[in-house]
Amino acid sequence: MRTVDWDKNRPGIHLIDQRLLPGRVELFTCRGLDETVFAIREMVVRGAPAIGVTAAFGMALAACVSPATTPEGLRAELRTAARQLNAARPTAVNLGWAVRQMLVILEQPAEQVTQVCERLIAAAQNLADEDVAINYRMAAVGAGLIHDGDTILHHCNTGALAAVDWGTALGVIRMAHEQGKRVHVLVDETRPRLQGARLTAWELQQLGIPYDIISDNAAGFFLRRQEVQKVFFGADRVAANGDVANKIGSYMLALAAHANNVPVYSVFPTSTVDLTLAHGDLIPIEERSADEVLDIQIRGERASPLGATARNPAFDVTPYPLFTALVTEKGLIHPPLPENLPRIVQGI
Amino acid sequence: MRTVDWDKNRPGIHLIDQRLLPGRVELFTCRGLDETVFAIREMVVRGAPAIGVTAAFGMALAACVSPATTPEGLRAELRTAARQLNAARPTAVNLGWAVRQMLVILEQPAEQVTQVCERLIAAAQNLADEDVAINYRMAAVGAGLIHDGDTILHHCNTGALAAVDWGTALGVIRMAHEQGKRVHVLVDETRPRLQGARLTAWELQQLGIPYDIISDNAAGFFLRRQEVQKVFFGADRVAANGDVANKIGSYMLALAAHANNVPVYSVFPTSTVDLTLAHGDLIPIEERSADEVLDIQIRGERASPLGATARNPAFDVTPYPLFTALVTEKGLIHPPLPENLPRIVQGI
Repeated sequence: MRTVDWDKNRPGIHLIDQRLLPGRVELFTCRGLDETVFAIREMVVRGAPAIGVTAAFGMALAACVSPATTPEGLRAELRTAARQLNAARPTAVNLGWAVRQMLVILEQPAEQVTQVCERLIAAAQNLADEDVAINYRMAAVGAGLIHDGDTILHHCNTGALAAVDWGTALGVIRMAHEQGKRVHVLVDETRPRLQGARLTAWELQQLGIPYDIISDNAAGFFLRRQEVQKVFFGADRVAANGDVANKIGSYMLALAAHANNVPVYSVFPTSTVDLTLAHGDLIPIEERSADEVLDIQIRGERASPLGATARNPAFDVTPYPLFTALVTEKGLIHPPLPENLPRIVQGI
Repeated sequence: MRTVDWDKNRPGIHLIDQRLLPGRVELFTCRGLDETVFAIREMVVRGAPAIGVTAAFGMALAACVSPATTPEGLRAELRTAARQLNAARPTAVNLGWAVRQMLVILEQPAEQVTQVCERLIAAAQNLADEDVAINYRMAAVGAGLIHDGDTILHHCNTGALAAVDWGTALGVIRMAHEQGKRVHVLVDETRPRLQGARLTAWELQQLGIPYDIISDNAAGFFLRRQEVQKVFFGADRVAANGDVANKIGSYMLALAAHANNVPVYSVFPTSTVDLTLAHGDLIPIEERSADEVLDIQIRGERASPLGATARNPAFDVTPYPLFTALVTEKGLIHPPLPENLPRIVQGI
């Protein structure tokens, strides 16, 4: 099944509840806008492509359950819904991008409310299908970079769970594996939410790809010993010059790889690029609850003292000079990135 | 009380059990060699200076409880004890250094077993007292680097718990605080054993020094934003050229600081320097149990899937060009470190 899917029987969005993995595989079903906003904010669903598609379905769902009786009334209501969805998580640009696609559909002339609803459902479904196709193309592009016998260091989760299916960086690794290349993955556990230990390890197990989890701190050790051939991660928002905002820790990982001449690749659909931002320092960075850092237990005991405080930025920015290349559905993008990225994204 | 102390009533070593902090403050008492080796290996006691002194007391304890009736018999037994203690943890050089000091005492002519025992106890006690005095001197040297209003990023635990008292890098921060300088500490939680979240946060709370815990991944974020003025950590073994082996993650932290022009200091007693090793890649790096990475829970649930595997190197090496200076009881050591470190350690 897909990570994000529309309920064909009754208006709703089925999500694999990623808060419960790997212990339990359970569905979380959104039946209204509030639940959709909750699911995005609380990371029932996470990963830039997945939250984009969830937000698109969220717009369709809001339309389906709306009491509005005229297309005009529905439009007013959905513009409010769009603002609520956009505010759920600030960093990933796919969310705003997907919501904007739906607003364009919304503005098309319509006679009846049901007509608008049907168009929105079809458009969201189309985005979901397109996401899978785009991820598959990215995987094919990126797999060419991987050689038989490579050890790949991977940060956060970028697999099927981070998208509708297939994934971004992990999709590349999966494609190389399916091409018969032997790969070994060092999985950054990715504190504080442990998406690597919880989700990436689980996906790799399902795919039969050998891996070892490491503490994020250990990446530098293996890079310095030349035990890693490539570093791959995803992206939550990419500025026009190629600076990449991604899960916290990506920046330190890229620095350590660069210092040891190990290639670094970020894999993302071009919908993740925000050409309105000249560089990465302009990307809004979400700071999440301190509890994500503090609520961690070893042998059942809380690790931090009572009364402890924490800071918890969820993303950081990796400056473009640290990337060997960027992997998109439109092909590899090589340096100089400030020239090549806008050109390729705009199809010039 | 001291982190490591000799029981004056009955041969034994009192240790603050660091596995239980910050939830519980309990003593772990070693009454024989096996318990002492266990306490070092399982990290009941940890921190290079603290395990050095524990090993010295361990030699004295082995002598006290020995059934040997002649100084010769005792010597043979203690040479075996020395090997066991040395093997407990391979990276910190203070352990081998302290054991060697005790072997020198052991070889002095003696008529009776009790005479040897008394000398060993006195020598170990002397090492413990010296450790406190040395840490105090280092703190005074290092505190001069800290300015009023500084935010300091700190890795692992290097406080009173890592030594007999006072500490190394955290001792420097404490001294600056006691001098009336306002400091704020960003505490790397320090996966996998979380010595930062568990021990450093607890010590800072006791000292009344304001801090925030961060995931190790977040250090780069704050360094890039110029929210950090200095990075301080300790050392487990320092090679002759100034390469520093320290808790895993120190290397990535130093790289990120260096990339952002933030000064990096390692604080250690000169007993941590191993002049027999030309550079850091020759330092043996302990790889600990995968369970330290895998046995982590969020909301009571294990984070990694069943059957997951992990790699767990406990230390990494930070190359000397990344340090602004080294802080020792013999003063600051400035670059070029390959020239200045051996000279100052040898007192030339």
